[in-house]
Amino acid sequence: MSAITVCDVGPRDGLQNDSTMLEPALRAELVDRLAATGVPRIEVASFVNEARVPQMAGAEDVVGTLHRRPGVVYCGLALNERGYERLLAAGLDEVHFSFAASETFNQRNQGSTVAGSLATAGSVVGRARTNGIRSTVTIGTAFGCPFEGIVDPGHVAELAAQVVAAGPDEILLADTIGVATPRQVAALVTTVARLGSPVGAHLHNTRNTGYANALAAIGAGATLLDASVGGLGGCPFAPRATGNIATEDLVYLLDGEGVETRVDLDALIGVSEWLEQALGHPLEGQLYRAGRFP
Amino acid sequence: MSAITVCDVGPRDGLQNDSTMLEPALRAELVDRLAATGVPRIEVASFVNEARVPQMAGAEDVVGTLHRRPGVVYCGLALNERGYERLLAAGLDEVHFSFAASETFNQRNQGSTVAGSLATAGSVVGRARTNGIRSTVTIGTAFGCPFEGIVDPGHVAELAAQVVAAGPDEILLADTIGVATPRQVAALVTTVARLGSPVGAHLHNTRNTGYANALAAIGAGATLLDASVGGLGGCPFAPRATGNIATEDLVYLLDGEGVETRVDLDALIGVSEWLEQALGHPLEGQLYRAGRFP
Repeated sequence: MSAITVCDVGPRDGLQNDSTMLEPALRAELVDRLAATGVPRIEVASFVNEARVPQMAGAEDVVGTLHRRPGVVYCGLALNERGYERLLAAGLDEVHFSFAASETFNQRNQGSTVAGSLATAGSVVGRARTNGIRSTVTIGTAFGCPFEGIVDPGHVAELAAQVVAAGPDEILLADTIGVATPRQVAALVTTVARLGSPVGAHLHNTRNTGYANALAAIGAGATLLDASVGGLGGCPFAPRATGNIATEDLVYLLDGEGVETRVDLDALIGVSEWLEQALGHPLEGQLYRAGRFP
Repeated sequence: MSAITVCDVGPRDGLQNDSTMLEPALRAELVDRLAATGVPRIEVASFVNEARVPQMAGAEDVVGTLHRRPGVVYCGLALNERGYERLLAAGLDEVHFSFAASETFNQRNQGSTVAGSLATAGSVVGRARTNGIRSTVTIGTAFGCPFEGIVDPGHVAELAAQVVAAGPDEILLADTIGVATPRQVAALVTTVARLGSPVGAHLHNTRNTGYANALAAIGAGATLLDASVGGLGGCPFAPRATGNIATEDLVYLLDGEGVETRVDLDALIGVSEWLEQALGHPLEGQLYRAGRFP
């Protein structure tokens, strides 16, 4: 039996893409509820421009309202030096830096060239090490880009080598628009794992390949998987389809496969039931609607 | 590159569980549209009591209205001798007989003991051979039952041995309520494949394990997969969740994995788009909503 770290990105990546905006106090309550289920890592906030991402306004309020539990790693997203400084001042345990492998996507979403983002990644990772907090770097559009199509795995591997050289605690490969299939995921995770860093995967279920991809990632050596409670969060490039894989559906799958997550599945289903009420609409996850088995 | 036969069960298993009833002429049009995409096998009708399953009323009208394409195997469901006789008279190519591995489920849904259903399976398969048409037998609730919980794989293997002894063209294992995970599917398909008959899997995505299970089934030697265009059809035991895996999502996955299906994916997505209009509500499939890639 292997073990996997699940990071719930619902309070950040999920809520950022939901049609309903939640106040900081409710976002903090979501994080507290997730922490109580045994989820070991949670992305709680995004330290970005509030004018551009109003869903994430009040990041400091979210962090300040949390009831921190020992053993849970509380993380935030920062995409530049200023965001990192806010995250550090707020007192989080881990910074997530993210950029896209495809030039067009990165320039549109990050306002930076890929080379510029790589430099910022190196700086943020270095500062995190100096400041004694953890860091991860996610390479987005690692399998496909809505503007450039298929992304060359060799290109992603080169970027990954530069990321790993900066020394983050983990490197993640993101299927940002949910186009990968398992053998692509397995191949790229295998390549990146050879660089010597722990590897994670951030998978979307936009074309119903997300859960098979999760198993493929684990089979290839990934030790960290992002997921979002209830499958919270959509896909801006496919507004009628879904985004993140659902944390509880992933845990159900991993339980069945004998992969340890230390998450209380019934409690996690309870969070999705609560969240459906809080948001006022059904979530994409299937398990909380179907009920667990047996 | 391996090859898999996909059987679209949308016109039967799908429509039978949809909230919208379609007239026989529209059901025949759905079948014709599916046949035009290259789907090699289609379950077009159910020869059951129309009072009990009004969605399937007019099975003979559906079959009589079809524009049959050479090379496509047109199938129907029959659960007893009378149903088989209607199916044979209607002129279909293949009879699907189905029963549940769990006694409670089978008695409630089939009105027969498992032993009684096994006997009928043997009779229907024998008559099909005599009449020169193909036959398959599906063992339902092969992984879990809503009334009895986990179903013992050893019990299913014993039933499978009796089914295979009757000599159908294929035996299928059905995850009727969508609870299996890949290693269970792989183990049972492996066991049943050793009996010497071609093996198929009928998988539901009720807990988001369906597509990973499909790959596991293929990896274990399955050569036939049921799926439903658009993921048509729900789960009577989980009314808020989904049922069949979607044919186009499965084909996208298999295309990516190098498994040949000979289905035109763009054409199949077009059928789901048409079907959404015909039914007046969105379908569960993700791919037709997200769009294919690249």
